[in-house]
Amino acid sequence: MDLFPTLKDIQQAARRIKPYAHRTPVLSCKTIDRLLSARLFFKCENFQKVGAFKFRGACNTVMSLTEAQAKNGVATHSSGNHAQALALAAKIRGIPAFIVMPENAPAVKIAAVRGYDARITFCEPTLAARETSLATVVEKTGAEFVHPYNDFRVIAGQATAALELVEEIHQLDIIITPVGGGGLLSGTALSAAYISPGTKVIAAEPANADDAYRSFHAGKLIPSVHPKTIADGLLTSLGSHTFAIMQKYVRDVVTVSETAIIQAMRLIWERMKIIIEPSAAVPLAGLLENKLDIRGKRIGIILTGGNVDLEKLPW
Amino acid sequence: MDLFPTLKDIQQAARRIKPYAHRTPVLSCKTIDRLLSARLFFKCENFQKVGAFKFRGACNTVMSLTEAQAKNGVATHSSGNHAQALALAAKIRGIPAFIVMPENAPAVKIAAVRGYDARITFCEPTLAARETSLATVVEKTGAEFVHPYNDFRVIAGQATAALELVEEIHQLDIIITPVGGGGLLSGTALSAAYISPGTKVIAAEPANADDAYRSFHAGKLIPSVHPKTIADGLLTSLGSHTFAIMQKYVRDVVTVSETAIIQAMRLIWERMKIIIEPSAAVPLAGLLENKLDIRGKRIGIILTGGNVDLEKLPW
Repeated sequence: MDLFPTLKDIQQAARRIKPYAHRTPVLSCKTIDRLLSARLFFKCENFQKVGAFKFRGACNTVMSLTEAQAKNGVATHSSGNHAQALALAAKIRGIPAFIVMPENAPAVKIAAVRGYDARITFCEPTLAARETSLATVVEKTGAEFVHPYNDFRVIAGQATAALELVEEIHQLDIIITPVGGGGLLSGTALSAAYISPGTKVIAAEPANADDAYRSFHAGKLIPSVHPKTIADGLLTSLGSHTFAIMQKYVRDVVTVSETAIIQAMRLIWERMKIIIEPSAAVPLAGLLENKLDIRGKRIGIILTGGNVDLEKLPW
Repeated sequence: MDLFPTLKDIQQAARRIKPYAHRTPVLSCKTIDRLLSARLFFKCENFQKVGAFKFRGACNTVMSLTEAQAKNGVATHSSGNHAQALALAAKIRGIPAFIVMPENAPAVKIAAVRGYDARITFCEPTLAARETSLATVVEKTGAEFVHPYNDFRVIAGQATAALELVEEIHQLDIIITPVGGGGLLSGTALSAAYISPGTKVIAAEPANADDAYRSFHAGKLIPSVHPKTIADGLLTSLGSHTFAIMQKYVRDVVTVSETAIIQAMRLIWERMKIIIEPSAAVPLAGLLENKLDIRGKRIGIILTGGNVDLEKLPW
């Protein structure tokens, strides 16, 4: 039996990260509401520290470590938002962060992680090389490994975004989150189940990286092989913990086209005047493609992050 | 003697527009604060209806018209945010809006104005042609002319942004606004003078369109001739009313380079994850260029709008 994070775990995570994380605003947009004949509530994690919800999980994990666990620092492999999130959380606690990154990671992401004083180890851009490098780093340093999503401490941290959303916006019919590794999705599903059991939680995923869709319907983990999508935060496949929670608490998975992701991203930029990354546009893309019956309903959407390369926009 | 809008006029404008305009949020950003060793409070009019503060002035004017004044609609010449603002305000009141636009106006702006059901008259892209076309339209329709800025009703409306800002954020040392025609600047200066007299109001202006700077120092109106700046909302020159208020209540004008405008715009996009137009970046550009002594001070900045062409970004 899995010991999923409890409501108490999530509430404790919320208290733990409160001094360091932003309570992000919930925005709405009448134009988009009219377009979809529904009421949408966007939880703006693009305004979160490091520009993504990932700070919640990393911060909860780092702040929950005992002195003994924390003393040698924390480690992970990531070239994305989790790396920055862990680096910042470690910096706040005053412990080292060791980040394994592929040697072809974009310079801007390397600079961001360095900006939080993390120590970077570069490796070949393969999963095998990442895991070997990480194992070496952990062995050498004694640092605590913090997985980007398949870790109940991380999941409990990510769950705090939906906790804030359902506390602030009542009677949501549906909450939609993107799914990559499933940390946010599973945390969201737990928070909704505990606090707002009438709210269905639905995952949205790029059709080009549809391991969650296939795993959900097959009832077993089927990882993506070489997925390719503009939603680069969603390239990872589900983990055992996140999948177990998903099977129990998530109602459905919708897949979306690349065109719809870009269209949804642009709609939010143009109409809401906020910057979101492609991964964050995936739930709205599903609605634009009419993947769900939402007419007249109240829909929560978690805008996962706002880290984009302004030199390389998809239009 | 000019009869400047009084505090009561501004408070009345605030009540008048309240059902239709957003009370926009005030955001801050620790990274930018650290960079400038000051505390900055950004009043986000990019989130205002039609994406710009201009809705406040247009809405106040339209809603303050008597039935007799309103019955034939309203008219203006503008290819920018004022046109959309007036069109929306008229649509809300249920009266026609007649907009004179240059025939070379961007298709996206024409579409936006049409989207609010305004009737557009195209003219040659010269000030003379605009004014002639407008006079013809007004004569033919009997519509009430609403000037984009040199109108006390408009100024009282724009003043409500600073009214909200000083109500929410106390003890500001300085408020900086961009200056084009001066509607926002003069309204801001009045609100600060009435409610927060310890707060200095300062104008920021592109060096390439520096009529306010030159007029302020010469003590007489010196319009810009063929100004050229990326801050296309600031191409217009001061009017008699806005200049009179500026002379009495504005402390200083700083001019900024085009490079600094683009740098400031990008800094806000990247760090605050919000979309602002180049004109809105002009005050921060002035701070980045060290045009003011702000160390340790509390600075309010009005982010004037967020209407940009995402196909033509300046980086």
